[in-house]
Amino acid sequence: MEIVVGIDIGGTKTKIGLVNKEGTCLVQTFFRTRDYLDLDAYQLQIKNTVDGLLQELGGTPIVLGCGIGAPNASSKNGTIENPANLAWKGSTPFVAKLKEKMPMPMRIMNDASAAALGELLFGRGKEMTDFIAITLGTGFGAGIVANGKLIDGFDGFAGELGHVDMNLGDGRLTGLGIPGGLEAYVSATGLKRTIVYMQAQYLDDSRFRNVAFNDLHGEDITKAAEEGDVLAIKAFDYTANIMAKALANFTAFTQPEAFILMGGLVNSGKWILEPLNTYLDQYLLEVYRGKVKILESGMEGKTAAICGAAALIWENHQTN
Amino acid sequence: MEIVVGIDIGGTKTKIGLVNKEGTCLVQTFFRTRDYLDLDAYQLQIKNTVDGLLQELGGTPIVLGCGIGAPNASSKNGTIENPANLAWKGSTPFVAKLKEKMPMPMRIMNDASAAALGELLFGRGKEMTDFIAITLGTGFGAGIVANGKLIDGFDGFAGELGHVDMNLGDGRLTGLGIPGGLEAYVSATGLKRTIVYMQAQYLDDSRFRNVAFNDLHGEDITKAAEEGDVLAIKAFDYTANIMAKALANFTAFTQPEAFILMGGLVNSGKWILEPLNTYLDQYLLEVYRGKVKILESGMEGKTAAICGAAALIWENHQTN
Repeated sequence: MEIVVGIDIGGTKTKIGLVNKEGTCLVQTFFRTRDYLDLDAYQLQIKNTVDGLLQELGGTPIVLGCGIGAPNASSKNGTIENPANLAWKGSTPFVAKLKEKMPMPMRIMNDASAAALGELLFGRGKEMTDFIAITLGTGFGAGIVANGKLIDGFDGFAGELGHVDMNLGDGRLTGLGIPGGLEAYVSATGLKRTIVYMQAQYLDDSRFRNVAFNDLHGEDITKAAEEGDVLAIKAFDYTANIMAKALANFTAFTQPEAFILMGGLVNSGKWILEPLNTYLDQYLLEVYRGKVKILESGMEGKTAAICGAAALIWENHQTN
Repeated sequence: MEIVVGIDIGGTKTKIGLVNKEGTCLVQTFFRTRDYLDLDAYQLQIKNTVDGLLQELGGTPIVLGCGIGAPNASSKNGTIENPANLAWKGSTPFVAKLKEKMPMPMRIMNDASAAALGELLFGRGKEMTDFIAITLGTGFGAGIVANGKLIDGFDGFAGELGHVDMNLGDGRLTGLGIPGGLEAYVSATGLKRTIVYMQAQYLDDSRFRNVAFNDLHGEDITKAAEEGDVLAIKAFDYTANIMAKALANFTAFTQPEAFILMGGLVNSGKWILEPLNTYLDQYLLEVYRGKVKILESGMEGKTAAICGAAALIWENHQTN
């Protein structure tokens, strides 16, 4: 059996799994990224984890290679550069170093681009040639597929839309210190920031007036909206409005058939999706109206990022 | 000898030429678009013009097909839809109708996308896989090339960036009545609008205080800047600033290696290009800084649009 190692490097967890040709993650595990601040120790932990998974899987699988999704990764250079949420600063030659420990075909890519590739090979993008995958977790990520191909960009940094000031909000700082960047508003973290913003902006009573910022959780905001909490509903509406403006702009760029959404914010379901659809219809140029779908990812949440990373290698073994 | 018919449909002129494999326009002519308001009469005039050019060229060339660049064209549907500057309203099945008169392989495309394809096959894009061609004439057009391929979008309307409100200006109306669209600022027409805006905004004396809006011409604005006219210089700076913000946003999308500029506004040379480069460097995310070139089109201005249109057919006859 042929398999691919998929690795998703996040600020909190590093998830690793073995993925077959159909995009099924056969075995998986994770460790805490911050337990290994030194690059060498971190990569040794990856190697040991992969060895353990191969043992757990059993048999004699042929390992075709290793795909890695990471924030601020350059696919063309095999590097991770100045990530906001990882310990290694500057430009880290991640692939070259890991290959010394695990000699096999290896590719790294921005995590949102990897997610888009996962959707293209294994998910809701299978039947589409033009779509944009949007990840809405701690940050805002975008992976763009056009003409049936992922767009890498000149040196592998396409789709870094979270930090660009699109003049859509009121100048909130992103993790990179950039005012007005999309991810300060449109992400799971952005929603929390909007909850406190709404407390400043309005006088409505809200359950969140008794909750500290650091104790805010997405699920609670969804539940509050369901119970009619005015500030929670206003926060979703505010987030959806800014997101719709952004997606309308993106549509004029590559005219995707669909946006495929994933990540924490999507778990809020109709509270974010209903206003998003309403506003998007309003902001789209007439020529695009009614032609752009908003879809939720069809990938299983827990392993989606691993399968996306593995898609970097499976892409080169497709036989169609 | 093999040749392709290239047709550029503009609001004022319809330019037609015969283009060889190297992208040289061998013979060419034009007629006034508005002299033929009826679609049938217009297309008959195209056919007669092409027949005349073939006769002028002489010999027995093999006509491989006909490529057409037009505003608001859908490449996938072969239609022109609700153009702001043409007489035919609604959705016009332009290709199907013209094929009845000129039965040959035929493709139509947004004029800016055709220009991008022209650059890819014959111009400065030859050595690049990722670039964006920007046309700055009456309007603002963008043709996006990524992975060495033009991006069409789901139904052929990618790159319609001129009418999108990106919140970059102060809400000027575009030709489609959309407030804040890019082409209200960043285009040859936009520059003229900015000249009168500057007269409202500032008290500086200027030669343009004696010129009516309808008598404003791009060349005069350039000449005035050269002579130190403060309002002219301010107008270029204002235009370049908004353009730089837009290009910085576009860069975060597909990370082009270069923007290739063409159209009337580019003739202003350093007056637009110098502030554009300065502002762009300022607005780009760090990860992109120093990696994005601003280039002027290498195509001969007079025939660039014809060659771009012809590229739609030549693209399918490349042998590399």
